[in-house]
Amino acid sequence: MSAPTELLISNIGRLATMNGEGAVLRDVAVLCAEGRVVYVGPESGVPAASRVRERLDAGGRAVLPGLVDCHTHLVFAGDRRDEFALRCSGATYAEIHAQGGGIVRTMRLTRDASEEELLLTAIRRAAAMVMRGVTTLEIKSGYGLSLDAELKQLRVARAIEDHLPVRVITTFLGGHSVPPEYRDRRADYIDLVCNEMIPRVVEEGLATFCDVFCEERVFSIAESERILLVAKAHGLGVKLHADQLTRTGAARLGVALGAVSVDHLEQITAEDVALLGAHPETVAVLLPASVLFLRSQTYPPGRALVDAGATVAISTDLNPGSSMCDDLPLMTTLGCTSLGLTPSEALRAVTAGAAAALGQGGHLGCVTLGAAADLLVVGADHEEALPYRFGRVAPHAVVSAGRVVVGPGLVPLGPPVTLSRARREA
Amino acid sequence: MSAPTELLISNIGRLATMNGEGAVLRDVAVLCAEGRVVYVGPESGVPAASRVRERLDAGGRAVLPGLVDCHTHLVFAGDRRDEFALRCSGATYAEIHAQGGGIVRTMRLTRDASEEELLLTAIRRAAAMVMRGVTTLEIKSGYGLSLDAELKQLRVARAIEDHLPVRVITTFLGGHSVPPEYRDRRADYIDLVCNEMIPRVVEEGLATFCDVFCEERVFSIAESERILLVAKAHGLGVKLHADQLTRTGAARLGVALGAVSVDHLEQITAEDVALLGAHPETVAVLLPASVLFLRSQTYPPGRALVDAGATVAISTDLNPGSSMCDDLPLMTTLGCTSLGLTPSEALRAVTAGAAAALGQGGHLGCVTLGAAADLLVVGADHEEALPYRFGRVAPHAVVSAGRVVVGPGLVPLGPPVTLSRARREA
Repeated sequence: MSAPTELLISNIGRLATMNGEGAVLRDVAVLCAEGRVVYVGPESGVPAASRVRERLDAGGRAVLPGLVDCHTHLVFAGDRRDEFALRCSGATYAEIHAQGGGIVRTMRLTRDASEEELLLTAIRRAAAMVMRGVTTLEIKSGYGLSLDAELKQLRVARAIEDHLPVRVITTFLGGHSVPPEYRDRRADYIDLVCNEMIPRVVEEGLATFCDVFCEERVFSIAESERILLVAKAHGLGVKLHADQLTRTGAARLGVALGAVSVDHLEQITAEDVALLGAHPETVAVLLPASVLFLRSQTYPPGRALVDAGATVAISTDLNPGSSMCDDLPLMTTLGCTSLGLTPSEALRAVTAGAAAALGQGGHLGCVTLGAAADLLVVGADHEEALPYRFGRVAPHAVVSAGRVVVGPGLVPLGPPVTLSRARREA
Repeated sequence: MSAPTELLISNIGRLATMNGEGAVLRDVAVLCAEGRVVYVGPESGVPAASRVRERLDAGGRAVLPGLVDCHTHLVFAGDRRDEFALRCSGATYAEIHAQGGGIVRTMRLTRDASEEELLLTAIRRAAAMVMRGVTTLEIKSGYGLSLDAELKQLRVARAIEDHLPVRVITTFLGGHSVPPEYRDRRADYIDLVCNEMIPRVVEEGLATFCDVFCEERVFSIAESERILLVAKAHGLGVKLHADQLTRTGAARLGVALGAVSVDHLEQITAEDVALLGAHPETVAVLLPASVLFLRSQTYPPGRALVDAGATVAISTDLNPGSSMCDDLPLMTTLGCTSLGLTPSEALRAVTAGAAAALGQGGHLGCVTLGAAADLLVVGADHEEALPYRFGRVAPHAVVSAGRVVVGPGLVPLGPPVTLSRARREA
């Protein structure tokens, strides 16, 4: 993103910094320069030497750090609307899978799609998120499941930043499913992931993290560990889809491996909760939309995790099969109603908590000196209006890297895409 | 609303008529004249005599009847954000009430607010709903609880139509709570409702329906029946807040009284379900957002009601205490995930079902010859994208009474209010 001029956000009624214990400052201004926060305090104290070129009047509204969506599968082709309808009519996952549904269906569509098609839909989805206040977005691969298609998915995810004012952090998820052509030789697929995909992803600089879907009939604890150890050896951070449908012990594995996050956690035990409480460096990423969408009654124990001292994040889990939801503000409501958090804790979970799940604690998801100047001016005088109103509070403004990217007087982010701009050399 | 010119909506990929058994027509056009639907069929069959002055190209998208939100408390002052936070921290309703919270708190703020202030906030809320595809809105009183304040609330609700292209249907809910000044003489309050409020509301033409919050410690079955019998005698249709927190038998009372709807129904029994199945003329209005918001685990038995043959509607229940939600499209998702409906049934519940709950079946909430020309052109090629995508599908266009009120090339509905326009003679 280009270096911005100095921006002064004045007349902030409440600044929910999400620092440390979560200080909320009243009646302050924030000065941004070179894409970072350089002053937080009363407007009268803005350094005299500053050369403010742009001003944003918050009009007494509440300001949060820009929201961080730390677990998405945003790059994919097609949708699975019909599977949602089948599930509502009582079909099981196995039945849907038998009809050619599930991850493999999205894999086929994503393999077949051109990079340009994938980028166009990805940009549209990401733009909708930015319009709601998201300034950082994690995106996983995992619908390619071949070397070329995984690389394609990650290139598309990386290209979004060329078109939209949003930070994208990418995660390699070759270990999302064993593709059909390896059904009878799964060890060969794991070899492919470890010996070819990971080295190539790292060589091309396409991912920061490696994730594995550790689950009965997907990847076992031993398989997950093998993949993640290779990833670590190649310098990637690690994450896990952990204990979602069955309690496999993946959260424990994540802690043992020093994972930056373990995600889902619907089935974790009280001991797992205590372990995550003792290891706040491994963030518990909770995904309530997928619980709702799958019509499960089992939410992860959000309240217990917070009480145990765990670092908690909430994300949309945007994906076409189990959570076709791009609405992070709504997740703050579900964080309260379904995970047992307070509004303040839910907001922390989509800012500081989510940033920590991306290894960006202290830089993203908080408003502090030296942090990235990513801010959300909430369209209300209290930040907790967001969970209270089911996330339906349009931002007054969104600031990304010190620039106002959504705001009063700006033309809304339209379809910002031309396919020619999106084209990349292979 | 002013009489429109003829409008032709062409190139409709799917028209979910919500008529009868729910026919979906492919590749059709709809012609609207004088605010009504006058032709539905292939574009080649549009009557030669029509004088189309306006065209809307649906571009192959799906079209639904305009959405009907059939249970809201949209006119109120203030909010109760802090009570939501207290509830998330474990406070009970009784504790919140003891701290001055609950309906009485909104009553005080609403009594104190000027008609202009109330109208301004009401228009903003209604405009947000129109932007999502709502073309008809029911609004209840019940935060006045005095003759003057109830009349004020209903006048404000009625005035919304002067400012926004939305149909408003009003319901008198003096029986929402016994106000504090009548705490020790509740019979006197019920006399006031029956002998003064209802006659005056009818005399001033301010309501179509009368509703009562029938619940333990609110209004008993006998009290509710008395109020509703008076309302019927004055020509009002009747509704009931029924069996929400406890099973009082209010749904049965509603059927016995020929109520147009019984609303909530979280606690109804299997016999109640069967009764509603046998009486489809009394619509079961389900309010999943309030179940979520109150952090209850008990959803009404949506699936069983549909299977029994009941007419089912879903609404937001928008109100500051138990459902600060103005998002009817999102309710279609909760209808699937939490009430057990199929996407198609959930869409019917916010169109034809909701219209029936307002005594407008066959006129609103369906697309058929002679029906009101209220339509939603969904921003997707299938109407079930709405529940699948958590309601986050921006309308391509909204047509109200044959006019395009939200659509491509139109300036978004901004704050449409000037207080001077809103002022009314007392």
